[in-house]
Order: sequence, then C-alpha cells, then structure tokens
Amino acid sequence: LNGHYQCAETELNSTEGELFLSEAFKVILEEAVHKATDVKEKVCEWKDPDQLRDVLDLELRDHGETHQQLLQRVRDVAKHSVKTNHPRFFNQLFAGVDYHALTGRLLTETLNTSQYTYEVAPAFVLMEDVVLRKLRSLVGWAEGDGIFCPGGSMSNMYAMNVARYWAFPQAKTQGLWSVPRLAVFTSQESHYSMKKSAAFLGIGTENVYHVKVDESGGMIPEDLEAKIVHAKSQGAVPFFVNATAGSTVQGAFDPLDRIADISESNGMWMHVDAAWGGSVLFSKKHKHLVAGIERANSMTWNPHKMLMAGLQCSVILMRDTTDLLMRCHCANATYLFQQDKFYDISLDTGDKSIQCGRKVDCLKLWLMWKAVGSQGLANRVDMAFANTRYFVEKLKKREGFQLVSEPQFVNVCFWYIPPSLRGKENSADYKDKLAKVAHKSCEIGICVAPIIKERMVKQGSMMVGYQPLDGRVNFFRMVILSPQLTQSDLDFCLDEIERLGRDL
Amino acid sequence: LNGHYQCAETELNSTEGELFLSEAFKVILEEAVHKATDVKEKVCEWKDPDQLRDVLDLELRDHGETHQQLLQRVRDVAKHSVKTNHPRFFNQLFAGVDYHALTGRLLTETLNTSQYTYEVAPAFVLMEDVVLRKLRSLVGWAEGDGIFCPGGSMSNMYAMNVARYWAFPQAKTQGLWSVPRLAVFTSQESHYSMKKSAAFLGIGTENVYHVKVDESGGMIPEDLEAKIVHAKSQGAVPFFVNATAGSTVQGAFDPLDRIADISESNGMWMHVDAAWGGSVLFSKKHKHLVAGIERANSMTWNPHKMLMAGLQCSVILMRDTTDLLMRCHCANATYLFQQDKFYDISLDTGDKSIQCGRKVDCLKLWLMWKAVGSQGLANRVDMAFANTRYFVEKLKKREGFQLVSEPQFVNVCFWYIPPSLRGKENSADYKDKLAKVAHKSCEIGICVAPIIKERMVKQGSMMVGYQPLDGRVNFFRMVILSPQLTQSDLDFCLDEIERLGRDL
Ligand SMILES: Cc1ncc(COP(=O)(O)O)c(C=O)c1O
Ligand SMILES: Cc1ncc(COP(=O)(O)O)c(C=O)c1O
Repeated sequence: LNGHYQCAETELNSTEGELFLSEAFKVILEEAVHKATDVKEKVCEWKDPDQLRDVLDLELRDHGETHQQLLQRVRDVAKHSVKTNHPRFFNQLFAGVDYHALTGRLLTETLNTSQYTYEVAPAFVLMEDVVLRKLRSLVGWAEGDGIFCPGGSMSNMYAMNVARYWAFPQAKTQGLWSVPRLAVFTSQESHYSMKKSAAFLGIGTENVYHVKVDESGGMIPEDLEAKIVHAKSQGAVPFFVNATAGSTVQGAFDPLDRIADISESNGMWMHVDAAWGGSVLFSKKHKHLVAGIERANSMTWNPHKMLMAGLQCSVILMRDTTDLLMRCHCANATYLFQQDKFYDISLDTGDKSIQCGRKVDCLKLWLMWKAVGSQGLANRVDMAFANTRYFVEKLKKREGFQLVSEPQFVNVCFWYIPPSLRGKENSADYKDKLAKVAHKSCEIGICVAPIIKERMVKQGSMMVGYQPLDGRVNFFRMVILSPQLTQSDLDFCLDEIERLGRDL
Repeated sequence: LNGHYQCAETELNSTEGELFLSEAFKVILEEAVHKATDVKEKVCEWKDPDQLRDVLDLELRDHGETHQQLLQRVRDVAKHSVKTNHPRFFNQLFAGVDYHALTGRLLTETLNTSQYTYEVAPAFVLMEDVVLRKLRSLVGWAEGDGIFCPGGSMSNMYAMNVARYWAFPQAKTQGLWSVPRLAVFTSQESHYSMKKSAAFLGIGTENVYHVKVDESGGMIPEDLEAKIVHAKSQGAVPFFVNATAGSTVQGAFDPLDRIADISESNGMWMHVDAAWGGSVLFSKKHKHLVAGIERANSMTWNPHKMLMAGLQCSVILMRDTTDLLMRCHCANATYLFQQDKFYDISLDTGDKSIQCGRKVDCLKLWLMWKAVGSQGLANRVDMAFANTRYFVEKLKKREGFQLVSEPQFVNVCFWYIPPSLRGKENSADYKDKLAKVAHKSCEIGICVAPIIKERMVKQGSMMVGYQPLDGRVNFFRMVILSPQLTQSDLDFCLDEIERLGRDL
C-alpha cells in the first residue's frame, strides 16, 4: 500500500504486448480477411447455440490464459462468425470489405480517443468537419451542420429531437407537458427506427402516422396530406415528416419534392432517412432518385451500408445554420467544455451530441475516400446498380423466380416458386400454398423461404434474407452492393436457391 | 449496363488489399502503439487548428491516392493524435492500452457484423449474454437483464426510459401527454448525461431535481428526501433516482443503501450510474464503496474506463426478470426479427436496443477477461487505488499543492499554488487571486490551471484536466488508472506541474 505494488504477472510489458498483437493480427488477417473473403470457403459455419457455447468455451474465470490459448480463441471466434465480407453474403444492407476503410478502423481502435474536444481529438474534430461538409455539398448544402452518430436509428432520433426543439424549444427544459400533442409522419415501409424514436423521445408510437405506399413502396403524397388533416382533426400538431430514400426492404424512394411541398405548406420539419439510399448522391447517373433532397431540413446517411465504410458509420446532416444541433443538445458541462481554454472552443463540438464519450467514426470514411476519391465511390454505386440490373434480367428469364416489384435500387425482392407450385399461380389457394408448402420432413407446412434459408445457413453456401410484407408472403430480399461481387456470385445465388428448393 | 462492368482501378483485389492492410498495420503498431506508449515520446504534438488542417491535408477529392501516400496519411493522423495510451495521459476517465482488448477490437472491426440476431452474430449474441451475466453476478444479481450501449450516457438514457416504461407503460404508445409530470433526482455532481437524458426523452431538464452533495461530492440523502417532498408538492411524480458510484470530477460514491431505502419507500426506480466506479466490484478490498448496489434496479458500467477495454464499451445492467427491456424497446420489425426462424428466436436480442445495427462491444471485454481473468482485473483495480494512495501521499508532502478533498477513488483533485501566492491562503482575496494570477505575458489575469494546461499541451509533456466546481476555482483532476503507470510517472506529474507553474 506504500506504492510498491508490482504489476500482476498478467499485465504485459510493451514488448510482449506488441508481440502478441502482431501474432494476433496475422491470425485475424488469415481467418477474418483472407479466408473470409474466399468464395471457396463458407459464408458461415452454422452451430446450434448449445454446440457453439461449448466450442467457444465462453465462460469467464478467475485466472487468465496463455497467449497460445488466446490466439486459438481469436481463431475460434473468427471461424464461428458470419463472414459479412464474403462475396456470397447478401443478408443485410452491408457487405464486403474495403481494405482502406478497415485500415482506418484499426487505426481508430488503436488510438482510442473520444470525439468530444479538440484537446483530445484534434485530428478527428477537424476531419469530422471536413467529411460532414463534403457530404453536405453532395446534398447541395453549402452551409449547415451535422454529426456522426452510432447508427442510422440514432441519426433518425437526432433528427426528430432537433425538429421538436425547433418547433417547441421549451420541450428541452419543461418536457412534453408544455407542448401540444405532436404528430410524426412516415411511410408504412419506412424503417422501424421511426417508431423507436417516437417511443424513446416520449412522443409515443401512436403519434406516428403511417402513410400509405404504392406498389413499389414509395410514399403516396396524397395520403400524407390526408393523414396530416386527420392528425390535426384529432388535435395533434404535425411537426415532423420522414421521407425514406431507399427503403429497407424494397429499396423504394419516396417522392421528395412532393413531400417537401407538403412539409413547407404545413410548416413541418422534413427529414430524409437516406441511411440506405443516400449514397446515390455520389452517382451522376442515379442521383435523380433523391431529387429534391436539398429541400429537406435534415437527412440520415449511413456510409457503413452502401459505401462499405464499416459499422458503425452514420451521419445526420442538417441544413440549419443557426446552431440548432448544439442548442438542442448542449448541457455545458464545465469539466469537459471549459470556457477558458487557450484555443477556439467552437472546435469542441462534443456538446452537439447526446453522448459524452463518442467513438471516432469519421476516420474510416475519410481514409477510404482519400484512397478511391469521390470518383471511386461513384463507381462503386454505379457498379451496384449495374450488378443489380444483371441479376434482375437473369432472374426474369428464369423459371421459378418471380419479382415482388420492379427494383428501383439494389434491393431485389423475389419469390422462389418451387416446382410443385409452378403454373398454379392462378389457383385460389396459391398464395397460401407458397407460404405453407408441405415439406417431406415436416408434418405441418412451413414457408418456402424459411426452409431454403435454413438449408443455406446450415450448409454455409450463402446468406440472403427473407420477410413478409404487407400481405405479401415471405419473399427473399437480395441486396447487391459490394464491388467485389462478380457475375458468377450472382448466378450462383439463383442456382443455389433453386438447388436448395428444388424438392419443395 | 449489361453487367459487363469492370471493377474501377481503385477497387482492390484481395491480394493487394491484404498487402496494404499488413503494411498499414506495421505503421499503426509503430506509431500508435510502440511510440505512443513510450514515455520518452510526447503525449501530444500540439498544432493550431489552421496548421493542423494544412499538415493533414484533409480535403477530399475526386481522385484517389497511392498506397504510399495513404500509408503516410496513417502516419500523419497517428502523429497528430493525442496518445491516450501514453503513461502520462491523465486527462480523461480512460487511459493506457490493454493489448488483449485491442486484439478483440481489431477482430471486431474486421468481422464487421451487427449485434442484432443470432443469424448474423452467433458468437457475439452468446458472448454478450455470458459477459452480461458475469458482470451481473459481480453486482449480486443471479438473474436479470442488460445490453451493451454506445457509451455510458446512452446506458443512463436506457435506464431512465425503462424506468418510465415500468412506471407508466402507456408512455411508449401514447407519449408523455398520457402521464403526469415526471421528476428525476440526481446529485449536483452527477454526470451531465442525466440532464441530456431528461431533455432527449421529453421529460425536460427542469424536471431533474439536483440533490445537494457533501464536501467530497456524495449525495446527501436527507436532501434527496426533501427534494422528493418538494417535487411532489409541485405536482410532479418522482419515478427515478440516479445514484452515482464514482462521480466524474471528484470520484465520489453516493450512499447507495440510504438511497435505496428512500427509493423503495417512494416506489421509485433506483439507477446507479457506475460508469466510472463500477469496476470496484472486482476488488474484494474496495467493493464496499458500492455496498447496497444490489438493491438498485439498474446500473450503468463502462468497462472502457477503468478496465481499459477501449471505447466504446458500456453496459446497462438490470435486476428485472420480466423482460422489461425488450418490452420497453421492441418494435418487432418482421424483416429482421422473423418469427418463423429455425432456431430459438429468443436469441435475437437486438430488439432490446433502440439501435438497429449495433456494434459488437462485448468481444474486446471478453478477450481481455479471458486473458487476465477476474483476478487480473481485480489486481488492476487494486493497483489503481494503490497508485492513487502513493500520489496523494506525495502530493500532501509537497509545498504548493493542495487537495480539494480527500479522494475516495482514483480521481485526485488538487490546486497548484504558485510561489507568488503561497502562504497567503488566509488573505481575503486569495481565491480570487488563485483564479486570476497576473501572468507576465498577459495583460489580464488568467487562471493558474489553464496556463499550466496550455503549457503542458504545447510542450506535449503530459495531459491532465482541470475544471471549476461549485464555487471552487479551477483545479486539476488527476485520474490514475492505467496499470502501466509507474511511480516515476506519478512523480513526474507533480514535478512537471511545478516546473510549468513556477513563474506564476
Ligand atoms: C459518472 C459518469 N457517468 C456517465 C458518463 C458517461 O459515459 P460515456 O462517456 O461513455 O457516455 C461518464 C463519463 O465520463 C461519467 O463519468
Ligand atoms: C432505411 C433505413 N433507415 C435506418 C436504418 C437504421 O440504420 P442503423 O442500422 O445504422 O441503425 C436502416 C437499417 O437498415 C434502414 O434501412
């Protein structure tokens, strides 16, 4: 207790530590990069939870382990994780690997700082500013504001909160009791974070009005108008409309210009959830999909999705130039945001956030952007569209596959119709059957898509998601984004679904 | 457009990509680990923002760069970042480097998956469960719930929201208009995330009642009782009390048992913000500081602080066994949380979160824990306390240094009294002078601590924070946590402050 404490044997000195890190990096490179991206390897190595618990020996004990054991653990965790960077991973709205972004991520982790003040994150405070500015310029905003958030759901929440503050600043101090009942508008096919946001912010899920969509999933502006009238008639105050640019399932783009007209004439804040579709802004050819986005007040954009920056990388961008974001969120903690610093304290942007410690999420995007340039990112977007076209054309020509709707984006939603059901599309109980094909090994009927999904995961050959939607029975949602994809990977996808579902 | 798209020249094939990664890793290891932890190197390389912008050439352009240029960028960013893993970084509630945790972080980044379903994160879903369970067992909860959140502020927000749902479930659906005005209680020296939480959740900052603290910063339970009575008399409903275990500035521990009595008798949810102090639970010797914590309903704990797991690593733990967390936050999105999966869907824990994509934050903690064992983590905590004792003893013996209060934890708050002020402690304007020493190079008076801080940062010799608090003028807050610290680093701190402030 007189300070003559010895380092525990388990505390490494830096030489041992660096040696371990280097060895571990080799294992990571081999298992989580090299093999993980090899098309001849599995996308995932399925284990039942009970088996997997055993294999991983997850239990935490009193005593530590040797470096050899730990390296084996790194190998095991990698082996039993899903290879989201594998060319046949089509399961989420992220996939593939960008080696430059990954480098940025490794550097971020190693530097381990927090993005709140210039004092502890000088390079990253300036970098965040440059990246946000550049992203805004793609939207068409010469000025404005923004911040990196831990994911698109959080960015959407930020938007809703800032809009509320803009409409009723007293909500920040006095709470919602000082404000009339608020109404939020978003499409039926918008992301569920709108509901989560309304619940979390104290607005309530029932004050989210779900606007109807057309067949392809885009918001119907006439119904938005009707819903606004309806909400008003119920005594609620419409303050926030969320338009989706690239919906989660169908990849639909809401008609932004029409929605902007309606927002403006109703004095509402217009937010665009472009978490998924925002990256079309890079592409001269495809940015028409978000025409009108510059009229919005804010937008969410996730470079960790289409641009492959790596999780988590999401921004909220704002057109506002009155420091709303700071005014809405600041708490002015004196231990962190001292006012008597020797540098320009407007660089201490952390108080714009609802977080305190905030992970550095800008470096991976910045380094990737430096590496390939805006042009490279544009190519990436164009390539995803072209690959999607290719896949859709192949799919259309193929027996047993049927589009749910014509894709606007890089989500391809389709049913696989097993041989036993083909040609029976017009029979009365066709839809029911598609959902409940009697399968050999099952007494009760199970959906086609879930059976195929189970088989593909257990075999590890590929991963693609499925879901029902608005009366439409389970269909596959293929997401085509990684520039590392080849046509043969896309061909494989169709072949494989057919192979796995042939006997159904 | 027929799919015969070529990869842009900027898209790497895997061989080139892996080569680049390996080279970049060497640079990272050298610049952000080896040099960064070398006591002979600077903690930071200060540049004015304008200079730094030039040096880093942050601008993003149309075209990409060569690998040589990019490696130089990695070097530059590392060079101009603050070395939070340096033994003389005492500026925040995190410091140092744990090589095993860092390995876990590199693997996490490389695997790039999202913690929402067993389907895409099998190993991490199970691992999160084991880690949470083990952390809860240290609290004394054989059962319960919890989740990793992006930082302690978010964990605190989760607690407040879950408490609200527990007290008034209709808030989730109908919003706060269906609920009486709510009141939150927290100490004057609690973390500012309580205010941010109340604002964000729509409760309002004015509905946060700040309870008085004693000299060392601990909540005064009698004042909590008085504030509850006061709030009730104003028509508000007390529903949530936050006790702090390890306050941000002074490191104070609120009296948990007393607060639990008061919470219980008022039917309130008791949360413990142990973001900073929770790690004492590992130590047989020091866990008495949080006696009574098992009576709380929830707690926040940041292993990225004292345990050195790396940012971001924070959990909210709950005693609840009724699935409150899920019920409070779920939105039941069918595209992600399909009900007809082939495995036990209770493993799809993502809907407990307010996020959708959620970074994997458990692996780094798990791997570190595997490496050193609970015993190793306990040693780490004990070592921090012992180092603090050492530092405090030295400080007390030294002329010109004065404790703000006797430390309970590993925060040491003290003034440096420059020679020109010594022995004048009893003069009427002493405090004023301490805050406004006329400095040679300044016309107007500036605080002692800010001047010394500026000098240390510009010289890069060490980093330690300062702040005013509740009428007490700017004092230093030294944070002693890294087991890599030596006594000579602690001696250095005192010498260096003296050297930098001698002429004041
Ligand atoms: C007591 C306390 N609670 C909560 C937090 C917030 O943690 P985070 O920075 O992870 O949001 C801090 C941060 O320093 C803290 O000291
Ligand atoms: C349209 C849309 N918005 C928001 C989100 C949420 O993004 P995150 O997963 O980063 O929270 C998603 C996620 O898929 C999305 O598709």
